[in-house]
Amino acid sequence: MGHTFPGATVPFGSVQLSPETDTISYELNGKYNGDVYKYCAGYRYEDKTITGFSHTHFSGTGHSDLGDFLVMPTTGKLKLNPGTASNPESGYRSRFSHSDETSEAGYYKVKLQDYNILAELTATTRVGVHRYTFPKTDQAHIILDLMAGIYNYNNKNVWTYVRVNDDRTLTGYRQTNGWARTRTVYFAMKFSKPFKSYGQKNYDGKRVYNGFWRKFDQSKNFPEIAGKQIRMYFDFNTQENEAIEVQLAISPVSQANAMENLEKEAGNLSFDQIKTKAQENWNKELNKIVTKGTEDQKVNFYTAMYHTFINPTIYMDANGEYKGLDQNTHQAQGFTNYTTFSLWDTYRALHPYFNIIQPKRNADMVKSMMAHYEQSSLKMLPIWSHYANENWCMSGYHSVSVIADAIIKGNYTGDAKAALMACVATANKRNYEGIGDYIDKGYIPAEKNGTSVSNTLEYAYDDWAIAQLAKHLGETEIYNQFIKRSENWRNNFDKTTGFMRPRMADGNFKKEFDLLSTHGQGFIEGNSWNYSFFVPHNPDGLIQQMGGKQKFASKLDQLFSMHLPDEFFADTEDITREGIIGGYVHGNEPAHHVAYFYNWAGQPWKTQKQVRHILEMQYKSTPDGLGGNDDTGQMSAWYILSSLGFYPVAPGSEDYAIGSPAIKNAVLALENGKNFEIEAIDQSPGNVYVKKILLNGKEIKNFTLKHSDIMNGGKIVFYMSNKPKK
Amino acid sequence: MGHTFPGATVPFGSVQLSPETDTISYELNGKYNGDVYKYCAGYRYEDKTITGFSHTHFSGTGHSDLGDFLVMPTTGKLKLNPGTASNPESGYRSRFSHSDETSEAGYYKVKLQDYNILAELTATTRVGVHRYTFPKTDQAHIILDLMAGIYNYNNKNVWTYVRVNDDRTLTGYRQTNGWARTRTVYFAMKFSKPFKSYGQKNYDGKRVYNGFWRKFDQSKNFPEIAGKQIRMYFDFNTQENEAIEVQLAISPVSQANAMENLEKEAGNLSFDQIKTKAQENWNKELNKIVTKGTEDQKVNFYTAMYHTFINPTIYMDANGEYKGLDQNTHQAQGFTNYTTFSLWDTYRALHPYFNIIQPKRNADMVKSMMAHYEQSSLKMLPIWSHYANENWCMSGYHSVSVIADAIIKGNYTGDAKAALMACVATANKRNYEGIGDYIDKGYIPAEKNGTSVSNTLEYAYDDWAIAQLAKHLGETEIYNQFIKRSENWRNNFDKTTGFMRPRMADGNFKKEFDLLSTHGQGFIEGNSWNYSFFVPHNPDGLIQQMGGKQKFASKLDQLFSMHLPDEFFADTEDITREGIIGGYVHGNEPAHHVAYFYNWAGQPWKTQKQVRHILEMQYKSTPDGLGGNDDTGQMSAWYILSSLGFYPVAPGSEDYAIGSPAIKNAVLALENGKNFEIEAIDQSPGNVYVKKILLNGKEIKNFTLKHSDIMNGGKIVFYMSNKPKK
Repeated sequence: MGHTFPGATVPFGSVQLSPETDTISYELNGKYNGDVYKYCAGYRYEDKTITGFSHTHFSGTGHSDLGDFLVMPTTGKLKLNPGTASNPESGYRSRFSHSDETSEAGYYKVKLQDYNILAELTATTRVGVHRYTFPKTDQAHIILDLMAGIYNYNNKNVWTYVRVNDDRTLTGYRQTNGWARTRTVYFAMKFSKPFKSYGQKNYDGKRVYNGFWRKFDQSKNFPEIAGKQIRMYFDFNTQENEAIEVQLAISPVSQANAMENLEKEAGNLSFDQIKTKAQENWNKELNKIVTKGTEDQKVNFYTAMYHTFINPTIYMDANGEYKGLDQNTHQAQGFTNYTTFSLWDTYRALHPYFNIIQPKRNADMVKSMMAHYEQSSLKMLPIWSHYANENWCMSGYHSVSVIADAIIKGNYTGDAKAALMACVATANKRNYEGIGDYIDKGYIPAEKNGTSVSNTLEYAYDDWAIAQLAKHLGETEIYNQFIKRSENWRNNFDKTTGFMRPRMADGNFKKEFDLLSTHGQGFIEGNSWNYSFFVPHNPDGLIQQMGGKQKFASKLDQLFSMHLPDEFFADTEDITREGIIGGYVHGNEPAHHVAYFYNWAGQPWKTQKQVRHILEMQYKSTPDGLGGNDDTGQMSAWYILSSLGFYPVAPGSEDYAIGSPAIKNAVLALENGKNFEIEAIDQSPGNVYVKKILLNGKEIKNFTLKHSDIMNGGKIVFYMSNKPKK
Repeated sequence: MGHTFPGATVPFGSVQLSPETDTISYELNGKYNGDVYKYCAGYRYEDKTITGFSHTHFSGTGHSDLGDFLVMPTTGKLKLNPGTASNPESGYRSRFSHSDETSEAGYYKVKLQDYNILAELTATTRVGVHRYTFPKTDQAHIILDLMAGIYNYNNKNVWTYVRVNDDRTLTGYRQTNGWARTRTVYFAMKFSKPFKSYGQKNYDGKRVYNGFWRKFDQSKNFPEIAGKQIRMYFDFNTQENEAIEVQLAISPVSQANAMENLEKEAGNLSFDQIKTKAQENWNKELNKIVTKGTEDQKVNFYTAMYHTFINPTIYMDANGEYKGLDQNTHQAQGFTNYTTFSLWDTYRALHPYFNIIQPKRNADMVKSMMAHYEQSSLKMLPIWSHYANENWCMSGYHSVSVIADAIIKGNYTGDAKAALMACVATANKRNYEGIGDYIDKGYIPAEKNGTSVSNTLEYAYDDWAIAQLAKHLGETEIYNQFIKRSENWRNNFDKTTGFMRPRMADGNFKKEFDLLSTHGQGFIEGNSWNYSFFVPHNPDGLIQQMGGKQKFASKLDQLFSMHLPDEFFADTEDITREGIIGGYVHGNEPAHHVAYFYNWAGQPWKTQKQVRHILEMQYKSTPDGLGGNDDTGQMSAWYILSSLGFYPVAPGSEDYAIGSPAIKNAVLALENGKNFEIEAIDQSPGNVYVKKILLNGKEIKNFTLKHSDIMNGGKIVFYMSNKPKK
């Protein structure tokens, strides 16, 4: 359920060129043919066939979309239908074997057994590059399936346009109404060799103006194509082992920009040249952290790091143009525009991690979020946005956390006051998800909102982040207003049970209530057991409410050791059974900071133990190595930071809680030119406890590392032990 | 069946803002509710209700499309459905009476009886301007129906996007798949007064991502709207006789351009100011010909002239950007881009007329056609194009005639050689409509093409036009090739019957054949009787084939006097019974030059008589005054030129055949600063015969006027009589 993809991309690239194993849910009869959720990333390891290689993929999401421009090479009799997994011969798909498959950063290779074609993929930022090595045949085909896509709802295609410019190039666009409500991706496609013929089939099933078809046979060699459901093919003669290369560039703005992207980034470069560049690019980015450890640790570490550098993606043409939320074309002024903000997930660790290791990109991400705000006629910062759309997914308004964290940590070069005002405007959108009631009553009445408790708790944290930003900017009035709001978590805390609990409009707590259940209880992706610890900005306040450090620690112990019965597990979303430790659900995000709470309870050794336990349990270098969706890098960012020995419990604060490093040694090559080194003396799988911590020779006793401690460069040394230091 | 519209437009304006009386064929049950063909222009005089006012209309076509952005003011309980003509209360439509209706150039007014609202319309080039005078009510509504449109096929809407920017303005776009296969119109809309609330209803009937609807009530006051079938409303309180003005600008390129068009052209101008400008604009254009005659003659003349200045329309934003056939945005360099080229109709008289009275615009139209050619990946000049689409309607490749005529007459300022090469490329497109066979065999085999004879005859004329252009440019080789092709009409001439007749691949004429029938006979919009005279470029050759002048003249007599039985009338397209004189079908175009052929047969008095007869019979200043579709001005251009006394029998030649002027006096104010005056001495309804013609005092005896005779300025005097001068 990791929902990552094995194909080729460059760091934060617009193109994610990756195999699909069964995403084409739009069969000829208009019915789904598979479980759409499973195919969020297009690829399932257990599948036996590949339907083709498409150019856009989310990494680790729990909703599906994208899957644009599926390309598939075949030989023999032309088949334009993908066929079915159970009967691959019924269509253009091919069987494949993992033994014929290689996946590297920026490169993917597989043998398509049914056609004896070697398929290789690589990419630039905006261009997917294919190399298909054919057998000798006068019936070689390359299919461009414009119907194919990764869906959550049926009938996603809205419109397609294609224009064949000459016998090697075509341009066009594809418009969808999927998870993103209104999304258009333009493309330009270039073959290394002229096709001998080409054609299309339109599956619209709609009566069209027939004058059109009377004048030409438009099914073959007719260069101006439009319709809702179109598949195209291109025919070649090939010699034994002849390779045909395909470059397909995408653009959010226009066909002309797509062609310009193609020429600028790929142009006359060969597949091998582009692959080399892509891998150099990855090495450069991944070398920002150099670790020492076992091979398995390094595979795990760099796999996680790789996954943190995929989303958000660059959403801007080589010439700086991008499509805004207002569906207008904009020119990015002084920043790179990014999209795919899964903020409910990523505000926790991914963006704080970027503030250390990718501060320039993170500042641009904030600028992209501000552009979204300015283009929003609602005047709201993004909630879950991608491809010039707001998907309104999940709770909270966590943009404010990302913005506060970036500004407080000194990374943002834009107008900080304007950013604060955008945060305030978003937090005051009274008709959004109970905010009006939240402002008036201090909580959201359970009868008015299905996720009333999650929302109240997350708003309270977000409000604290706004308060911190206001304080940082000297805006006392805003600080006072929002620091007060940040205490609203108390209104959902039921002292009689010691848990967060939905509250009714009349002020009473909801009567029917189950601590283990999620749905219908006022929560999302977490039950009360997990959400009751969601006060990342005021652990001491929460501890006090829960009856003091001892009781609090016992409650944490209980969380990590309890058994969640199957009936309630089914309630958790997007994770496997392995994504759970006791009642602690690491596969979802709400409790990601919770293991670090032992530090506040006076039992840091339990943080150390649990963090190492989670690192070991939840991240494995196997096809099913993740306990839940990677969530566009949040899960992996948790891994990286926790492996390095610290974690941002409350982004917006400069403090990191110290856990237990899992690596032996790591050097962070910071963008400011300084290095920060982490060393774990006596590191071993058994030595999970921290005996002593020296920062530049000076002991840290409060298990807190400051952001400036890292950014100033230097060295932190952990002395590891197999005994807890109580 | 004139298919003209009564609403407001400026000369060649992008916006044609006009009432619809029943065009909304997409009822809630997805069925048509009317005869789509009848509603090509949106308005039927016999209808009793108005559904609203939309911004784009063809003038006089026989296919339907457009009808974008229908706006309707109402009062009382909100109704978002248009309702039905038989039960107007069932929806937002209103009854109206012609006694409450005024239509002027650039202005339209009607009382909406059901709501006691006075609706007035005017326009700029790119902005439709509405003024609605309401009664006192706190339930005033202005509906924006984005589902409404003029269709030929069902389900035209592809996508809609709307963004409410503030309480007075919105922008968005509407994308359709109608007659134009892929068409997007962007808009910006501005109210003179803030609306108090607004909302939308989405009729997609499609399951959408529900996270979206959970977060907000999107039916009301939610500013970011997208879907396939959307209707919006805006609410106001009004005082008695309070007027609300609405400006709605369109753009082929973007919302931003639409807003810019609105600000540049309408901005803070009042309805009255814009109306005054629109009417000044019309007076300026219509004053290019100043006539003397009876009031009825003048009404007829300027109505016709008005109809010649509607299509083609400007298809370009105020900033010079337009959407090309390649669906890319282009910047017009040194010309105004036009669209809506109904060339099979308009090459005959409308464009030649423009070469006299609108040469600058006609040159830009040729440039627009060349831009289309350059953007076409087929490399073909337009056939029937509108809104960045090629509709492939009707026979021939008559762009070449328009281009040759403009260049030969010295109006084109672009690259003439490139234009010639575009003509040659188009004429050599072997896989288009039988051209390959036409080139190889000299005719199109009847079994291969449903309109084989029309095509062969029209290609032959077009080839002659290409030859004339080649000759003009000194391209002897091209001249030789195409002048030879121009004689291909002979290959469909059946000497045994003396008529044009379909011919089979084996060279034999088709056995089953009926001179009176159209369909299945190899013709389109004309039977063999009409098409047998379609050799406009070589009347003498045709006369010879038909057995000499006497026989030829008798055949013409027979055409004008025969009776076309009802069974064959049903075969003719797009015309009323009144559109026929004997067997001569003036309501369609193929015989438009035929009355002038008597000049070649040595019986010019019959040309004079027939032309005056047609002018009288076929053009009346009544609601049903046209005998057939006005065909984007071709019918009206025939009227203007014939009324002035001459007609371009073969565009591409500098010669006009002289007929019989219907006006007493006309002064043509030419763009070169010169005037050309036409005077008809002793003009009267009975004096249809021409006794003598003096051009600048010198007698014309060959019934031929040269283009240069007109453009050099001067005066032609016709001496009229009631007796034919045999």
